Amino acid sequence: MTAYLDNSATTKPCSECVKAVENMLVNNWGNPSSLHSLGIDAMKEVILARKAVAESLGAEKDEIIFTCGGTQANNIAIFGAVKAKKRLGKRIVTTAIEHESVLQSVQELEKQGYEAIYLMPDSKGVITKEQVFKAVNKDTILVTMMYVNNEVGTVMPVDVLKRAVKKAGSPALIHIDCVQAYGKTPINVKKLGADLVTVSAHKIHGPKGVGALYVSRDANLKDQNFATVFGGEQEKRIRPGTEPSPLIAGFGEAVKAFQKAGNQNSKIKELNLYARKKLGEIEGVIFNNDESSSPYIINMYVPTFMRSQTILQELSANYNVYVSNGSACAKGKKSHVLTAMGLSDEIVDKSIRVSFSRYNEKQDIDLLVSALKELIEKHPRS
Amino acid sequence: MTAYLDNSATTKPCSECVKAVENMLVNNWGNPSSLHSLGIDAMKEVILARKAVAESLGAEKDEIIFTCGGTQANNIAIFGAVKAKKRLGKRIVTTAIEHESVLQSVQELEKQGYEAIYLMPDSKGVITKEQVFKAVNKDTILVTMMYVNNEVGTVMPVDVLKRAVKKAGSPALIHIDCVQAYGKTPINVKKLGADLVTVSAHKIHGPKGVGALYVSRDANLKDQNFATVFGGEQEKRIRPGTEPSPLIAGFGEAVKAFQKAGNQNSKIKELNLYARKKLGEIEGVIFNNDESSSPYIINMYVPTFMRSQTILQELSANYNVYVSNGSACAKGKKSHVLTAMGLSDEIVDKSIRVSFSRYNEKQDIDLLVSALKELIEKHPRS
Repeated sequence: MTAYLDNSATTKPCSECVKAVENMLVNNWGNPSSLHSLGIDAMKEVILARKAVAESLGAEKDEIIFTCGGTQANNIAIFGAVKAKKRLGKRIVTTAIEHESVLQSVQELEKQGYEAIYLMPDSKGVITKEQVFKAVNKDTILVTMMYVNNEVGTVMPVDVLKRAVKKAGSPALIHIDCVQAYGKTPINVKKLGADLVTVSAHKIHGPKGVGALYVSRDANLKDQNFATVFGGEQEKRIRPGTEPSPLIAGFGEAVKAFQKAGNQNSKIKELNLYARKKLGEIEGVIFNNDESSSPYIINMYVPTFMRSQTILQELSANYNVYVSNGSACAKGKKSHVLTAMGLSDEIVDKSIRVSFSRYNEKQDIDLLVSALKELIEKHPRS
Repeated sequence: MTAYLDNSATTKPCSECVKAVENMLVNNWGNPSSLHSLGIDAMKEVILARKAVAESLGAEKDEIIFTCGGTQANNIAIFGAVKAKKRLGKRIVTTAIEHESVLQSVQELEKQGYEAIYLMPDSKGVITKEQVFKAVNKDTILVTMMYVNNEVGTVMPVDVLKRAVKKAGSPALIHIDCVQAYGKTPINVKKLGADLVTVSAHKIHGPKGVGALYVSRDANLKDQNFATVFGGEQEKRIRPGTEPSPLIAGFGEAVKAFQKAGNQNSKIKELNLYARKKLGEIEGVIFNNDESSSPYIINMYVPTFMRSQTILQELSANYNVYVSNGSACAKGKKSHVLTAMGLSDEIVDKSIRVSFSRYNEKQDIDLLVSALKELIEKHPRS
């Protein structure tokens, strides 16, 4: 028995995705930019996938730029937005609990002379609408915020960004990193009022190595003033380079598959409540996020003398239970999210993230609970 | 019968590559950055592939950064090199016949105030050593040149770059785009004296969406002064973002497969000579490159009233013969390479590129020749 509960790090590719990738590698391997029929056949699949991704976001086909993943999409969005608006102001508004690909990009822009405001969460990882309204001013050229936090699952006040920008009379572009929300929460980019939206395939049972950036037509971001990667004519010159057509096709199929599977909210909520009940019965466990956060993520303190990295390796090696101690991209570095939440070192050092997908069942949680109980009994808090 | 003769645009993934990608998608889909055993299992394959790519280039494992392709590798190399050396000079030396991902990047740097020298080829696409020595001065911070030109196959004087930089007493980093040479010409990055080398998987029967950048240990390019993409800890922070492990594994297998296939030089040379003989017998055909260029590429003028884009579409639609009219990345735009060679509009507009791989045989050339003969007869030069 195994329990994969690290779905915020990556997900198992669905069978539809695997089939599509295989088909492209074996039967439809032309360069989508080639003008002969092998190129056209490959491009047809790219177009179908683009349509699937666009529809899943309430966007138009020509507003979707395929990237090599969430990190590249976030980099293109942030550096592109600042490049496009550089003459209009200096301020970038973001939060202290963004993904590294946003935080490090904003920090680089600080080095270049931009002013960054990092909104701080409360002890449950919550950032309020009021904080956003207070931070966005006339000088703001970019607001970049994730929809759902990848470590604690809190839902950010992304729905007020447009209003805050309007109220301030600011020229800011709005970028929303939807990597952890996509395929879980219905997303409509128009209703969100976003100019730029990041999604990633491998978090929705698609392949690693591909993501997408929604670039609103209304934002009027021509490649000349927006592009920060340079090369050929692909992806409207915003992400040049040969289209990774096998991955793009796999992405499209993964999107269709999550749509076909339907809204999983009640299933995941039930799983989450069950997990919270069972895990909460273990003496000394503390939840770092509450039920107002995404049901897909539980972040919890484990009462043991071991640090989180050891906890997760023990769970993996001895129980075939797979969880994480934060973002996989951080490779075990101390969580900047839990730290920003003002939690004690004891909690920051010994917390784990449990994250669900539609493939999880109650038995996965039972396995986690029994493993944790045994682990804590063997290695109690000193 | 079909003849795929557009291998400089992309190649058919070899069976070893397909198998490796499938295996990673189905059985080994963990996030390579995850610290549990599923992550470690995926990382093992990334390490094996890194070893294969490193060995194929005469490099060390830790000198290989996986990217999402040649274009990203070229962007990272060029912007990273200039970032690292910006205090030491203003000049960038390159050629007028580089791939778009180099040319457009250098043009962007010109907008930022750097001085660019574009070496001009002669009418056969040749650039001389003397031109290099003349262009590189003390103020030069980057020399970026391709090994084999992607449109006309000419071999660039990359072997003198190191000497030219030394002679000028220049702090320049040397970047060599080896996309078209890799897997065809033996490459040893140390002997080449390169600091940075770009290769791509899908040109060597690997998957689209992955490439590699060699970053010499000796160049001492720490991520702080070199990185231009920001995010997590992956790929030494030079190409952050979840490693596309299925593609990386496929890349590694494609490298092993070309090594196993052995040197194809005499086979391809024979094919090339056969093609030149047969094509040369067609009245009015003119070769735009000669036998001193890579045997993998023939660039030729077709005596017809049709433009090259129509020629290649006719060849595809009516004869199942696949060639190109230049770089696929340019999507049919007028060739900047043939233009720089000073060829007449008549030739630039009506030339095609025929490019081989180890999978080609003489019968492919026979099919091309008979198709071209018929096409020219039906649609002669006006």
